[in-house]
Order: sequence, then C-alpha cells, then structure tokens
Amino acid sequence: MANSRRRSRRNRDGARVEYAAPPYLTRRIRPYELLDEEGLQRLEDQAEWLLSEIGIEIRDDPVALQLFREAGASVDGERLRFDRGHVRSLCETAPRSYTMHARNPQRNLEFGGDHLVFGAAYGSPFVYDLDGGRRYGTVEDFQNFVKLTHMSPWLHHQSGTVCEPTDVAVNKRHLDMVYAHLRFGDQPFMGSVTAPERAEDSIAMAKIVFGEAFMRDHLVIQGNINVNSPLVYDYTMTAALRTYAAANQGNVISPFIMGGAMSPVTQPALIAQAHAEVMVGIALTQLVCPGAPVVYGSFLTTMDLKSGAPTFGSPESTLATLTIAQLARRTGIPFRCGGHLTASKLADAQATMESTNAMNCGVMAGANFIFQAAGWLESGLTIGYEKFVIDAEQCGALARVIQGLDLSDEQLARDAYTEAGIGNTFLGVGHTMRHYQTANFDAALNDNNSYERWTDEGSRDMQRRAYERWNRLLKEYQPPPIDPAIDEALLDFIARRKSSMDDAWY
Amino acid sequence: MANSRRRSRRNRDGARVEYAAPPYLTRRIRPYELLDEEGLQRLEDQAEWLLSEIGIEIRDDPVALQLFREAGASVDGERLRFDRGHVRSLCETAPRSYTMHARNPQRNLEFGGDHLVFGAAYGSPFVYDLDGGRRYGTVEDFQNFVKLTHMSPWLHHQSGTVCEPTDVAVNKRHLDMVYAHLRFGDQPFMGSVTAPERAEDSIAMAKIVFGEAFMRDHLVIQGNINVNSPLVYDYTMTAALRTYAAANQGNVISPFIMGGAMSPVTQPALIAQAHAEVMVGIALTQLVCPGAPVVYGSFLTTMDLKSGAPTFGSPESTLATLTIAQLARRTGIPFRCGGHLTASKLADAQATMESTNAMNCGVMAGANFIFQAAGWLESGLTIGYEKFVIDAEQCGALARVIQGLDLSDEQLARDAYTEAGIGNTFLGVGHTMRHYQTANFDAALNDNNSYERWTDEGSRDMQRRAYERWNRLLKEYQPPPIDPAIDEALLDFIARRKSSMDDAWY
Repeated sequence: MANSRRRSRRNRDGARVEYAAPPYLTRRIRPYELLDEEGLQRLEDQAEWLLSEIGIEIRDDPVALQLFREAGASVDGERLRFDRGHVRSLCETAPRSYTMHARNPQRNLEFGGDHLVFGAAYGSPFVYDLDGGRRYGTVEDFQNFVKLTHMSPWLHHQSGTVCEPTDVAVNKRHLDMVYAHLRFGDQPFMGSVTAPERAEDSIAMAKIVFGEAFMRDHLVIQGNINVNSPLVYDYTMTAALRTYAAANQGNVISPFIMGGAMSPVTQPALIAQAHAEVMVGIALTQLVCPGAPVVYGSFLTTMDLKSGAPTFGSPESTLATLTIAQLARRTGIPFRCGGHLTASKLADAQATMESTNAMNCGVMAGANFIFQAAGWLESGLTIGYEKFVIDAEQCGALARVIQGLDLSDEQLARDAYTEAGIGNTFLGVGHTMRHYQTANFDAALNDNNSYERWTDEGSRDMQRRAYERWNRLLKEYQPPPIDPAIDEALLDFIARRKSSMDDAWY
Repeated sequence: MANSRRRSRRNRDGARVEYAAPPYLTRRIRPYELLDEEGLQRLEDQAEWLLSEIGIEIRDDPVALQLFREAGASVDGERLRFDRGHVRSLCETAPRSYTMHARNPQRNLEFGGDHLVFGAAYGSPFVYDLDGGRRYGTVEDFQNFVKLTHMSPWLHHQSGTVCEPTDVAVNKRHLDMVYAHLRFGDQPFMGSVTAPERAEDSIAMAKIVFGEAFMRDHLVIQGNINVNSPLVYDYTMTAALRTYAAANQGNVISPFIMGGAMSPVTQPALIAQAHAEVMVGIALTQLVCPGAPVVYGSFLTTMDLKSGAPTFGSPESTLATLTIAQLARRTGIPFRCGGHLTASKLADAQATMESTNAMNCGVMAGANFIFQAAGWLESGLTIGYEKFVIDAEQCGALARVIQGLDLSDEQLARDAYTEAGIGNTFLGVGHTMRHYQTANFDAALNDNNSYERWTDEGSRDMQRRAYERWNRLLKEYQPPPIDPAIDEALLDFIARRKSSMDDAWY
C-alpha cells in the first residue's frame, strides 16, 4: 500500500523495527454468508411490504416530504408509502465506493468494496478510567480520545462525538469537538448532527482547513444519522442529513434498533425493518444531492426482556448483523455495523466477551466501516480509557485476520523441515529467523508470561495494564503539524460563533 | 430432538419455565470457508510431501511400526514414509459419524456431520478460584468440575483429565478420575492415556458400567492422543491409541502445535504438518481396528517469539483453525479443534477476549467436537472455577448462533406492525408477548443493569458474579442415580488396583 504510516517496535535485541500500518484495511478473505438467496429475498420482500403497506414517517420536515412527493412517493400527512422497488431505485445514484480525505493525505480512507475502516466510539456522556471512575466527559477527555486515536496504528477514523464535552454549553460544544478533531488528529472524522446550524458550523470549519472549492467534490466530513425507530425520521436527523448531503458531504444512516422495543422481538423482522429504514435515509441523501457519499449503517441489538436493558454481543445480534450485511452487500453501498460493544461498566471479562462477539461478527460479515470500535462501555453511556486501548489492539488483530493466508512457497517452509529434521525445535532454523519478527501479530497488552513472572510483576490484570498504556501514550503524544494561519482561523471562527450565542445547557 | 434434558429458569413473574436443552447440538448454519479449492490442494500436497519425503517417526513402538510395514509403508528404523495418497487410503475405514453412549442414554452424543459437542477443559495441574487463588488440583477439584459440567445445560461431554488430582499418586489417579466421571456425571468422557495399563483400567471400569458385550460395538470412552510434534509419535501415545482402538473404543488424535517451535513459524506450514500428523494417527487406529471411531483433532496456536510463551486467540491461530477445519471436512471424519483458550491467569478482559476469539472461530469453522470449552486459564496450566462458568454460558450463546435464523411468517411478525403502528414501542404487542421468553438467549452472568443499580449491588465484575454462581451450583448439585451394585463394583475394582501397586509420584 503506497499510503502508509510507519510504526515502530523493538525486536528482541532492542533494535527498532519499522513496519507499515496502512491508513485503512483491504480484506483478502471472503465475508461469511449466513443466508441463501431465498432467505435474502424473503427479507427484501418484507422490507418492501413495510414500505408499501405500513409506510414510514418523516416528522416536522416538509422539505424532506416534498422531495419524496416530487420523486413519486405517496405522502399522507407525514406518512410516506412507496411502490415496491421504488426506494431501491432512488438509491441507485449512491456511489459504491469513494475516498474520504484526511487533513493528512497519507491517511485518506477508501469506503466500499473490500475496504474496511475502524473508528473510535461515539456518543457517550460519561467517561471511565481506573483512577477517576465514572464521571461526565469534558473537553479534555474528548481531546484525549482524539489523541489516543491518532496514536493507534489500528484506528483509521476519529469518529465524531467521541464523548460529550459536558463542561461546554450544549449549543457550543460542537465547535470544540470539531476543533479537537482538526487540531489533535489528522484522520477523517464526523461532524455535529444535533441541529442543522451545528452541522453547518462543522462544515464551515472543515472548509477553513480543506477549502470550499475542494469540498464541492471531495468528501471530508460525515454526519451520523440515527433513525427514530420504528419507522420514523425526526426533523433533527433529516435536517442534519440534508445539510451534509447538500454540501456533497457524507452521511452514515444508522438505524439503532433493540428488538422488542423499536422493532418486533424476532430478529428477521428487525433486520427487514432496519433495511427499510436505512434505504429511505439513503434515498433522501440522493434526492438532496444525487451521488452524495453515503454509508448503509446498522446498529442492531437485543434487549433483556425482563429489565428492558439493551444487551450486546448476543447470539441474536450476531445473526442479525451477519444477515443485514448481506442485504447491504446486495445494494453495493458501503456498509457500517457493530463495534466493540458491551453493557459492562468496566473492562472486565463481560466487556471483552461481548465486545469480541459483536466486533468479530461485523468483520466476518464484511463491514466496510466499523466505528464504535474502541472505548465503548455501559451500552454506550460511557467511553472507557482502558477499554479504548484494549479494543484498539484487538482492531490490529482483526486487521491481521482479514489478510488471510499467503500460501507461497516461502510460507510453506520446506527448507525449514530439511534443516530441522524430525522431532527438533524450529526455533533456531533460518526460516524462523527470517520470519519471527513479522509472522505473528504482537498483542502487547496480553500477558503471556509465566505465572511466577506475572506475580513478580504485580499480578496486573489486563485492565491495569491498559491503564498504564493509555497514561504512557498520552504522555508521549505529539500533535500533528498544522498551518498556524489555519489554526488561527479555526479559533477565530469558534470565538465568533460562541460570542453570537448565549449558553444553552439542554 | 427426542433426547433432551429439561432446564428451568424463572420468568419475570417468578414462575418456572421449562425448556429443552439438547444433549448435543446440530448446526443449521454453514461453516466459514476460508480457502478455495486451489489453496486446499496446495496444503494437501504439502502434507503429502511431508509424508513421502520427510516422513514421520513412531518411537519405541515396534508393534505400530509393524502394522504400518504390513500396510505397505516404507519403514527405515523408526522413520515411516508413505507414497502419496497412501495414508489417506488407510483412513478410509474411519467412520464419518457415530454415536457415543452415555451412562444416561438421554445424553448420548452424535459425532460428525452437522453435530457439535462441547466439553470441559482437559489437562491442568493447577486450579484457580477467587478465594483460594492458584493451587495444585485435587480429587475434590476434579469432582467439582465434573459436577459443574453435569449441571451445565451447554456442556455435553465431561472431557477427561479435567484437572490433575495431584493429591493421588501418579500411577493411581486415573482410577479416581474415571470413577468421578462415572459417578458424579452421566455424560460421555475420556479415559487415561498416560500409560497403556491405565488405558486398560479406564476401559475395564467402563465395562463395569456398560457391560463388555455392549462395548464390543458401542463407543463409550475415548483417549485423547497428542502428537509429539514435529512429526513424532511417542510410545506412550501410540500404545494408548492402540489400547482404545483394540477395544473398538474412540481416539481423538490431536497434534498440539505452536508455530515456531513444533512447526515452522508460518501458519500454512503448520497447518499442512498438523494434517500429515493427524492422518497418520487416524491411519494407525484403522490398522488396529478397521472402523474404530476416531476424531480428527487439532490444537494449533502461536507463540510469543520474544519470550517463547504460547499465545491463544491470536489472529494467526484463527486462520489456522479455519483452514484445518476445511482439510478435516474433506476427509469426512469428525473434527475437533479449539476451545475457550487463553494465556491469562484469571478471568479478566484478556481471558475472555482470547477465549472468545479461539472458540468462535472453531464454531464458525464447523467443528464437531470442542472440548477445552470451559475453564481454561494460563495456557492450560490452570483450570479456573470462575472461568468455567463464564465459558459454559458462552457455549450456550454459541449454541444459539448455530441455530441460525428462522424466517417463518411468525418470525417476520407482520401482525406486530399492524398492532403497534408507527413510532410506538413493541413491548406490549401480542407478538412480543408470544416470544419474549424464548426470543433471546439468557446470558444471566452478564450484567446489563444501570450503573446505579450495578453499584448498589456491589459493583461486582463478571469474575465476582461467576464466583457466586459456581459456589451456588456446587451447593445445589445432586448426583445422577447409579445402581448401588455397580458403584460397589467400581469401588472394589479401584481398591484392588490401588492395592496392587506402590505409589509412584512422578
């Protein structure tokens, strides 16, 4: 891969070994196909039934309703209904693959096809670390997570609202968030979607960095659009969607559905409903701006039907994710799902079990974009520092999995057998010496030492080791360079916007 | 499924809900296919090259060598070489599927085809629990793990040397182990392989329970045969193998290979070597007794090449497991791999991350038999009580995954949409009421409660909750019934055998 950044580690002699970490991944293994053609058609038929018979509502947004009316949908008040196949035809202009530009061109991303992009968690009001426990997030926490993302060789996208900076007014914090993304990292990111003027501000700040002309036909910023499932888009979301699309920027359309609450409790119904919902959002992006980049998102999970609490990494959500990936692949539009999701409050056994289940199935499903890939705790209410570095390293392991196997003669190592003979160790043979530094992914947070050495070193569990890692990383952080004039223009924009508004705290 | 045991849980009103937990699983989803035909042939060709050019050694076992000589292998000292295709042809009498009989016929197992059997961990000298820490295993620990296996609806096989009962002499402990399997559980299990006379004792004890005539043509006990990789079978293992096969009982042939030590460091070489090794073991079972039940086993993993420590759940071992499953499937012989494996010393985030990686890939690979599915810690040196109950529950989640999706009209829930309308919760609709108790797997060890409730309940992490579960389970344990005459005969056999030998402690 031409565009790559260098990462270094020390080999057994302490010498620094440089190797390339790519700015995004390209999978060389096939996705897992759960359903056959007949099953997929049955779910598509159910989605068409929903769109034609039940319909979908867009609330408080006459502009969006008018766009669909003009496109030929049946509009009854705020209820839209579509002839079979109509929504799909409206999505046909959505691009199948595209580049997302980073402030550092070496970190540009490719969306779609065989490409896979990992990003940080999104949307938590709380943060957690072993020292400070659980507390409301601040601007400093937000910046810290952007910095940790910047330093990870296995995260490609900075995500958006990494945590809520609750020490800044609700109507102003988007400015600090976008600034942090542009100043403390140099990878792609998502802007605000909580109000159309905040989406406008996000785009305006991106223009200061990338230039207005460049952004007319280059993707640099996205909005993450949730659906108010079941079968409702609210004005806040459609207005933000229209704002990003009108600027020819990106949208990620992500129904978040817990089966039993926002959909029927059975997974096949949930999957078809999500498919119907996301296709309507994609269609809206294309009605606003044909060809605007968009991601087919999904966030499908289960709930504890005794308590009403969401649950993650469950077997039912695995099946739903594997299936909706197939439906997405048939549209050809880049697909987002899953992440390192958990309901656990800290980085314990539950956290990584649920997270590994949720993340691995997304990767095996053939996802193109997985944010929520690092830091998630407590059903998304919290982003955790320890969890973040644990998850990020697991992203590296998965990056290795999707490279598949190289079956070249060198990998088959016949010379090693000739050299070692039978019954002898391969540790010292030439083939091993040629490959030992690169053969295996180096999951350095895992402790593989003897019990005796582990106890000598303080019997630290993985959470404790992760605590030490993120603290060290933040100490070592170096900001990526930025043109001082651009930085000044960003700060000036923020100051002007902030002074134009009174603080709002809700 | 006709043979099933009942498991109960309480519904939200506290009433007991009975549902069936099957004695083994039947997968309804396809295995993941990593390699294409060309890649698989390349690995098979490498295995044939190893068998014809490098060869394999059987040490100190002239009986086994003579069997292979008579079958047409080239024998040079202890080195065997085979014409291409010869070993495969010697495996042709191995049965593709078969029943393994349990003391409780309702818990009989099916090996092969679409069936999947989960079993407990195997082989640890140490045990761990939160209270007692890490310590040498005892007979009491061994019995405890048999009891916990017996009580789990998601474990189907009691495994073998669950832990080493180090409070009993090395030459006598197999008697206590086999007794524990026969007395405290009623599912199938594995006998001793550490010496041929101990394998004979294991079979003799099984005969007391199942009857000699029955065992002539029914499988009730297996030996787990490790290869002394690279490319060596030692007498201990071939003699045990021959003992079980001569009794028409089962063998699980399991090369345990860490790439870089017992094979070249590159996975394709490791996979082909494992295939060559296991096929020779299978061939030996068929030379001893054509048609004897056998499992194509594998235990392939990586090592930390800086420290020499084994590593588990690594991306490279995932790829190796997915691949060797394909090679096994092409032989048609029941396939064993993986498990909930980890190098961690306790049930922390590392433990479940590594375990989930290792276990899920085995299930997705299409395994028929996964022991080491509950309790593994510290690279197999330790079996942990907390880890055991965590792993067992995850086996239940995977049992749900391999059921796949039911796309019936009832699952598509059109009546739920008609009833709920748009934008409303589905919590109260009739469809949800019909399905809420069975729609989702109940992973009761996961805490999905609010942060406030979680802290009110003592901020217990998953390890702590698991500690409480296994203690409660052992208090609630009820032994399965046994004919007192048979129990007496077993105890009498053990007493006679023990009194015939001096204690040996090495």
